Amino acid sequence: MLKTPYLLFLGDAHDALAAKVAQGIVDWRPENAVGQLRLDGCKADLGIPDMTIAEAMEKGAGTLVVGVANRGGFIADNWIALLTEALEAGMDVAAGLHNKLADVPQLAETAARTGRSLFDVRHPTESYPVGSGAKRPGKRVLPVGTDCSCGKMYTALAMEKEMRARGWNADFRATGQTGILITGAGVSIDAVISDFISGAVETLAPANDPDHWDLVEGQGSLYHPAYAGVTLGLIHGAQADALVLCHEPTRTHVRALPDYPVPDMQDVMDMVLPHARLTNPDAKFVGVAVNTHNLDQAEAEAFLKDTEQRFGLPTVDPLRTGVGRIVDALV
Amino acid sequence: MLKTPYLLFLGDAHDALAAKVAQGIVDWRPENAVGQLRLDGCKADLGIPDMTIAEAMEKGAGTLVVGVANRGGFIADNWIALLTEALEAGMDVAAGLHNKLADVPQLAETAARTGRSLFDVRHPTESYPVGSGAKRPGKRVLPVGTDCSCGKMYTALAMEKEMRARGWNADFRATGQTGILITGAGVSIDAVISDFISGAVETLAPANDPDHWDLVEGQGSLYHPAYAGVTLGLIHGAQADALVLCHEPTRTHVRALPDYPVPDMQDVMDMVLPHARLTNPDAKFVGVAVNTHNLDQAEAEAFLKDTEQRFGLPTVDPLRTGVGRIVDALV
Repeated sequence: MLKTPYLLFLGDAHDALAAKVAQGIVDWRPENAVGQLRLDGCKADLGIPDMTIAEAMEKGAGTLVVGVANRGGFIADNWIALLTEALEAGMDVAAGLHNKLADVPQLAETAARTGRSLFDVRHPTESYPVGSGAKRPGKRVLPVGTDCSCGKMYTALAMEKEMRARGWNADFRATGQTGILITGAGVSIDAVISDFISGAVETLAPANDPDHWDLVEGQGSLYHPAYAGVTLGLIHGAQADALVLCHEPTRTHVRALPDYPVPDMQDVMDMVLPHARLTNPDAKFVGVAVNTHNLDQAEAEAFLKDTEQRFGLPTVDPLRTGVGRIVDALV
Repeated sequence: MLKTPYLLFLGDAHDALAAKVAQGIVDWRPENAVGQLRLDGCKADLGIPDMTIAEAMEKGAGTLVVGVANRGGFIADNWIALLTEALEAGMDVAAGLHNKLADVPQLAETAARTGRSLFDVRHPTESYPVGSGAKRPGKRVLPVGTDCSCGKMYTALAMEKEMRARGWNADFRATGQTGILITGAGVSIDAVISDFISGAVETLAPANDPDHWDLVEGQGSLYHPAYAGVTLGLIHGAQADALVLCHEPTRTHVRALPDYPVPDMQDVMDMVLPHARLTNPDAKFVGVAVNTHNLDQAEAEAFLKDTEQRFGLPTVDPLRTGVGRIVDALV
């Protein structure tokens, strides 16, 4: 668990999209964001107070979170002095980049000397058991997608927010670096040794009260030839009671692979369900979440309506319509 | 690649089964086994000459292979002196155990000083790319199972042997520690980071001549809730032209999980085929390989005959009948 609240470091982000991790924290856990720290030339602005490290310490910041990805996703040389200063001032530092904070000698040395922690959330340090497949109490939702990056994290976070607003007992369970930084905990499941995928998910979303809901963040797609193994281990480990299909309707091929078309939504449901029922015979699809960002309002409404008629399942865009109708379907 | 030939170290194996890795080398790569080295009390005997390290060096041994697993699969304290002696004498040392040779300080120090290599084949040291899904030339066979440990490695090795005897251009591709030690190369696929499962298999069985056959070792089962993610990544990475279903007919539940029955063979074929066809639309089942070890001769013959009639596919026991009829079906 990361120490909250956070000072969000945006570096010299070249646009708002480069700061999407920090934006996610502000969107979903605003109480965790005491301020932003930007370098000269930073083009992103989260709309929260700019702060020095000293000011953030006064506000009680526990962790400086690197909320920016530069091109390539690596720690930039011109960040190291500030990250070192944060450690010296008494904060931990967390990042979800490709290389590790812990592999930068100056940061490792400073953390060791000051007793602070470096969190490289893309690189799990815990060991996980192999999956047991044992049925466990508590209820779980898993979004599954026709592709990578089509709204699974957003859907799970939106459902958590909706459930909590209704007074339900609900927790988002992060399986990727962005989700981990947003919520302060989780497992970067695609970085786990493959023997332990489902076991890691069993650990992440453990036995719970019968009325408790875990919203397990989905990853990849069974139709993506690079990542389907991760997706299947996640499906088995999650033992989901409720599956939500996530889809982006304007995409023509799966991420990075032009020869692999985005599958039909029905085909994905048909392929997912027998796998999900291996570890939870009661698993079923309860709704469809469409990312209509690339459609105009009329197109979006038409697509949602057509999809709802086609499958007979509540069909939403988490951003345009909210996820309330899918949560209704869980009652 | 391990340096051949090998001196096979059996330690104080408590029975023949504990030396199954060494037995596999003798069965499938007898030309690689110059001799065996046994400690007092060893209950296994491979039927090849007993040798000291000095004698094995005279016979040209390149690697001492730890061909035994003690209870727990760890390096035993009373092996370390002999493994050190092998390094000092000029051999590399290879093992497929849970802990690493490289983590034993005396072995690491000796290897560094003498310039010898330690191979921990269960722990990949290479990095692999994410899968590309790009169609590649050459032909590939993948055995898939109703469970773990039901004959997939044996089937692939037997098919390689049969193909080579017919003058075909064929290579077994090991995906587990036993197969790697037997053939001297491969990737322990369940120890790869989960993002790279299919990419590792694409690397292991790369583009080849149009008439070349790779026999890719299968792992796990889509019906095993702990390991199915590995199995699916392997299916996608292998891009198999020909699938062979492997089954052990007396088993009632999948390995280690009494609540998960062994699935019906038809269900496994139905589940595997759409996944296999994602990366190779021409994938098909060409035969069934049954491990009838626990049946008597009459029962085995009846089971093979019934299965052949049920599926209309050549059905063999690699040990009792050989795999020739499955290889015939590839012509």
